Amino acid sequence: MRPSIYPRLAVIGCGLIGSSVARAARAAGVVDRIAVFDASDAVRDRVRDLGLADEVVDDPALAVRDADLVIFATPPLSIGAAAAAVAGDFKPGATISDVGSVKAAVGEALARFAPEGVFVIPGHPIAGSENSGPDAGYATLFQGRWTILTPRPSDDPAFALAVTRLTEFWTAMGAQVDLMDERHHDLVLAVTSHLPHLIAYNIVGTAADLEEVTRSEVIKYSAGGFRDFTRIAASDPIMWRDVFLANKEAVLEILGRFTEDLQALSRAIRWGEGDKLEELFTRTREIRRGVIDAGQETPEPDFGRQRQAP
Amino acid sequence: MRPSIYPRLAVIGCGLIGSSVARAARAAGVVDRIAVFDASDAVRDRVRDLGLADEVVDDPALAVRDADLVIFATPPLSIGAAAAAVAGDFKPGATISDVGSVKAAVGEALARFAPEGVFVIPGHPIAGSENSGPDAGYATLFQGRWTILTPRPSDDPAFALAVTRLTEFWTAMGAQVDLMDERHHDLVLAVTSHLPHLIAYNIVGTAADLEEVTRSEVIKYSAGGFRDFTRIAASDPIMWRDVFLANKEAVLEILGRFTEDLQALSRAIRWGEGDKLEELFTRTREIRRGVIDAGQETPEPDFGRQRQAP
Repeated sequence: MRPSIYPRLAVIGCGLIGSSVARAARAAGVVDRIAVFDASDAVRDRVRDLGLADEVVDDPALAVRDADLVIFATPPLSIGAAAAAVAGDFKPGATISDVGSVKAAVGEALARFAPEGVFVIPGHPIAGSENSGPDAGYATLFQGRWTILTPRPSDDPAFALAVTRLTEFWTAMGAQVDLMDERHHDLVLAVTSHLPHLIAYNIVGTAADLEEVTRSEVIKYSAGGFRDFTRIAASDPIMWRDVFLANKEAVLEILGRFTEDLQALSRAIRWGEGDKLEELFTRTREIRRGVIDAGQETPEPDFGRQRQAP
Repeated sequence: MRPSIYPRLAVIGCGLIGSSVARAARAAGVVDRIAVFDASDAVRDRVRDLGLADEVVDDPALAVRDADLVIFATPPLSIGAAAAAVAGDFKPGATISDVGSVKAAVGEALARFAPEGVFVIPGHPIAGSENSGPDAGYATLFQGRWTILTPRPSDDPAFALAVTRLTEFWTAMGAQVDLMDERHHDLVLAVTSHLPHLIAYNIVGTAADLEEVTRSEVIKYSAGGFRDFTRIAASDPIMWRDVFLANKEAVLEILGRFTEDLQALSRAIRWGEGDKLEELFTRTREIRRGVIDAGQETPEPDFGRQRQAP
């Protein structure tokens, strides 16, 4: 058996992603002991029942003080306060990371509260589901998925080693790891994740508010495309609230472009400019081919499921 | 063996949906003979190779003249011209239908060109996929899906019988059938299908045009939600061009509401109004529960696939 990468892992916040990290780390044998803290009594009880950790503690300082790796897996805007609460308890030489979907704000918060002698390496596994809570996690969640780490520039060779070690940790859990500038991460994710979620939340809200079309009609005939949006719009409300607030600048920038493009499309429809529509609709097919070619999606094996249509 | 519902079926236009009708009708034993016409030489050849029809004809009049049921399965804006071309060839007593995603414009076109003595009953199976062409169809496409028929009001008992017969045809192929006013259909589908497709095409276009984020980054990190949009935005360009043009009024109405709501959401993000975001994101979860409760989506059996995340 190979030695663990981090003898002691602390997971702070144990929902879908936190519990998946605990499960995957144990399954991969990359840690010896796992301590979990969650601010919710109910979640802590559930984590105990599920046996996800060696210790489930009521005080985050108890989880953090011996940990070689601390993973904050709370909603993005809570990470600062969570880190501040244990700022004096980190073990010297520990690596401090997270799994949040926003990296500049989180990197800022972690850097502010982390003392000298620990290594702050924010991270983001691009994996998950619309389900929330410790029951929703699973050990294979990160397999074949990208995890992006956003370490700030440093000349310290010990820091470089810490980045390598954290990369090994994620790789052992099945992820592919990329390093990226935190601001660039936030812009990329604003396009590939944050805007899609915002749009999905918005369209489901618009549909729910219509007077002429009943909610039951919307649900009944959802196979025409809407259904896919409802899945995305079922994602955790608190986490997504935090994502939009913490990545405001990039989200508003991308949203502005999206809205401009949508106005142009709206105008093309109003004026019957079919060639413009056709040109766009043909162009977007190429992107789809890229997604399939890049192995980011397996073609559907079962024709009867998950189809949508006009 | 039960007798067929329509001895002779003509399918005009044999792409994803037309070829699925041919396959499903044969599999269900609801027709004795199938004649197919498609305007494309390549499609006709392919339909012959696939053995989807008893006859594949080069002249639509040959398909239509003996048919008890004629299904137009061309893109919506072609249906009028396709019907006009064979207006003199319909068999008296035949039922004339279609599978288009827009019903008022198609109902208008079919009613204009259909002679006395045939029954015009527009239809729309809410089933399909992002794939196109005769190879993409399959016999089980309509199973467990809704098909909406939009017959115009009539006092003719023979017409009522024709509607019952067409309902039996779709039911035998596994669909559930609803009758609906054509304008209401177009509004409902504008919400549950047309707007979702428009939004998906738009966001994929916006992402493709960014300068700061490369196309390969968009593809690589698409698991965060964007991937689902790329699937929808891979749907047939010509058909969707026609849908938006033929259902302009309802699409622009729903798009106007969507845009209003999106502006409000944008403003809430800009001003940090987290409570407004949280309220919407919580409310949209209810709709998702409705979709699952209504059996419109099977919960994912395999956790490793088709997931998206922050």
